[in-house]
Amino acid sequence: MREYASLSKSELQRLQSELRARYEELRGLRLSLDMSRGKPSAGQLDLSNSLIDDLTAGDYMAGEVDCRNYGGLDGIAGMKRIFADILGVLPGQVIVGGNSSLAMMFDSVAANMTHGVRNGEPWAAQGRVKFLCPVPGYDRHFSICEYFHIEMIPVPMDENGPNMDIVESLVSRDHMIKGMWCVPKYSNPEGIVYSDEVVRRIAALRPKARDFRVYWDDAYTIHHLYGDLAKIPNILEECEKAGNPDMCYIFASLSKVSFGGAAVSCMCSSDGNVGYIKKRLSVQMIGPDKINQLRHVRFFKDAAGVRAQMDRHAAILRPKFELALETFGRELDGVGCRWTRPRGGYFISFYSIRGCAVKIVGYCGECGLTLTAPGSTYPYGKDYDDSNIRIAPSFPGIEELRRALEVFCVCVKLATVEKLLAASAPLIPPR
Amino acid sequence: MREYASLSKSELQRLQSELRARYEELRGLRLSLDMSRGKPSAGQLDLSNSLIDDLTAGDYMAGEVDCRNYGGLDGIAGMKRIFADILGVLPGQVIVGGNSSLAMMFDSVAANMTHGVRNGEPWAAQGRVKFLCPVPGYDRHFSICEYFHIEMIPVPMDENGPNMDIVESLVSRDHMIKGMWCVPKYSNPEGIVYSDEVVRRIAALRPKARDFRVYWDDAYTIHHLYGDLAKIPNILEECEKAGNPDMCYIFASLSKVSFGGAAVSCMCSSDGNVGYIKKRLSVQMIGPDKINQLRHVRFFKDAAGVRAQMDRHAAILRPKFELALETFGRELDGVGCRWTRPRGGYFISFYSIRGCAVKIVGYCGECGLTLTAPGSTYPYGKDYDDSNIRIAPSFPGIEELRRALEVFCVCVKLATVEKLLAASAPLIPPR
Repeated sequence: MREYASLSKSELQRLQSELRARYEELRGLRLSLDMSRGKPSAGQLDLSNSLIDDLTAGDYMAGEVDCRNYGGLDGIAGMKRIFADILGVLPGQVIVGGNSSLAMMFDSVAANMTHGVRNGEPWAAQGRVKFLCPVPGYDRHFSICEYFHIEMIPVPMDENGPNMDIVESLVSRDHMIKGMWCVPKYSNPEGIVYSDEVVRRIAALRPKARDFRVYWDDAYTIHHLYGDLAKIPNILEECEKAGNPDMCYIFASLSKVSFGGAAVSCMCSSDGNVGYIKKRLSVQMIGPDKINQLRHVRFFKDAAGVRAQMDRHAAILRPKFELALETFGRELDGVGCRWTRPRGGYFISFYSIRGCAVKIVGYCGECGLTLTAPGSTYPYGKDYDDSNIRIAPSFPGIEELRRALEVFCVCVKLATVEKLLAASAPLIPPR
Repeated sequence: MREYASLSKSELQRLQSELRARYEELRGLRLSLDMSRGKPSAGQLDLSNSLIDDLTAGDYMAGEVDCRNYGGLDGIAGMKRIFADILGVLPGQVIVGGNSSLAMMFDSVAANMTHGVRNGEPWAAQGRVKFLCPVPGYDRHFSICEYFHIEMIPVPMDENGPNMDIVESLVSRDHMIKGMWCVPKYSNPEGIVYSDEVVRRIAALRPKARDFRVYWDDAYTIHHLYGDLAKIPNILEECEKAGNPDMCYIFASLSKVSFGGAAVSCMCSSDGNVGYIKKRLSVQMIGPDKINQLRHVRFFKDAAGVRAQMDRHAAILRPKFELALETFGRELDGVGCRWTRPRGGYFISFYSIRGCAVKIVGYCGECGLTLTAPGSTYPYGKDYDDSNIRIAPSFPGIEELRRALEVFCVCVKLATVEKLLAASAPLIPPR
């Protein structure tokens, strides 16, 4: 296929009218498709249906603990053990939460803003708090920052993770940089796995702020697509070795293992941090839902049970990712876009030529295909290249996905052609 | 029985040595008893065991909503309907939460401190925030205030609720009084039901702070002991009528209906407040556990199903309360104490003569009986009379409770006699 960028104006115009006709056809179908959020599909949820009725009415004791009643601030032992084994930490370093690790992150930021980290002053009392945000990244991390008026500093990512020269330079100079978001494995949306060197350089940071904290959102820690689960150094161990034992909070959940909305989350950190956080939790609530924890313990039994489930998820997800990648390869050859080829996680990160993402997402919307809002993978929703679109192929069924990808590619091509026609000079894709 | 206060020194000394002997006997038994927290007993929890396995594996749809997946920020329709019917509000005024209404209260205070109420400035940015705390009250309300450095102003309660002359006078003068805790029905620990007049005067407050909020913790709204469920005016309606539509947040839960640790909570307020709060929730989390909501909807079916369950709870709880009241009446006649006779809720509020509560709780602890820490029913743990003890008879079995009450009465009498012996002048119980 000839490169779009090399086409003459008249060739582009001919292409535009073809694409416009196809687009109008699709628009007339009044489709309702969604590739916007990293939601498990019904088929994936079905894998865990036994969770719903696995417990018998008489099964509510976890050892000595009546899971029905109040109490148990940091979770039942069996649940801690599973998270500890998955994340390579000690059970005592695990605080089991409710159904949402996002809520645990929000709460942690909130508490550090108003009360400070362990042995620290309230962040908010020290001035305008800043967070480093590797980009593109997870929109909900950015929303938390926006909510708390935390200034977000974007840090570029490459195939090894965040650019550590920039990170090191920034945190060593500015005492108001109090945090950094990381999705270290199969990152959202890039699918990048941080290299060993990046993990170790993060652990060994020498921040000017003694109360700097790494928010290590290990959301996709076991979420491989091809069986070759990536391994990265244990961040808590690396922090300990580097003399930063309290610098990192790990967050994870079983939301994309069992049920998106009804699973179990956790937070892990040093013993010191765990003790400090539990003091806050003892004011905030009586304890998380232990019955749901017990269901998960009974259903998965152990970390191996969880991992086996992930193989089943991969078997469902892999064809969807492959369909997307095949479709992009076939339909978008020569168009001038690029996209990631993740080995795990929930997203493909797609880059149009500069200045097209808003238009593409708008066109898709007109055709009934919902995509993540353009720009949402960047702090303040500002993608200065207007190029990145997060593709979430997990939720639709395969035929629905096929249709969604068809719509997407037509809209990409149409927007690209129009951009090229409008541009005074040829445009190249960013990076 | 002769009044202790009228006994001579030698009579008191004889009594002391008898009681001391009995106390030592009890201490030697190395008992392990607990009347400290308002926890449902195993028998009460058993009433809801079907919740554990009632749902079948294929039952996860609530109308169009797949309860397994992400989403549904404010809960499923069936759960909202039940809460709305119980609390006399509209379903649209209900935000369903996770397993803890305490967490919803904490989050609400946290958000108002950092971001302010709807159309308000952050409380914390305006100076030292103050809350009115009717006393005695719920220790965990006070803990939330302490955590956020909110100054607590105790307001005395009488049999109709908080002293409204004091409340009105305080809130009309001080713009830093931003909140007030209320447990309007079967209050913790007094078991008081607010009178219609008190409810209406609360609703009609004219606070100097436009961002004043009533935290209406309706924890025991259907928790009667004798079938004669108290009715009080609908606070949201009364606020609306009085021109204060946004002034009140209601909190409630099914924790003491189904499972203490694995039930469903809610928050209700005006449409305006609900819309505002949902904006925060959309940053804080993806949604509450809808599967657990669906379990509750299937199990209880409707508000009538919930109310029927409360009759069964009452049948279990009533004999425990009656045993406590009988025991106090028999054992403590003439000792100079007083106690409440609640028609609902989870507590009996007990008053020793002045200056004995710490000693009584200490003696009980020595005998293996755990009680709520003395003073914890007051802000900052300061019961200036050293008199109030919260009795929670719900958790122990009836024979265990009998023994616990025996221990308690011996310790009360011993501490009272010792106090009288030590006092230069006779002491009278407070109030």
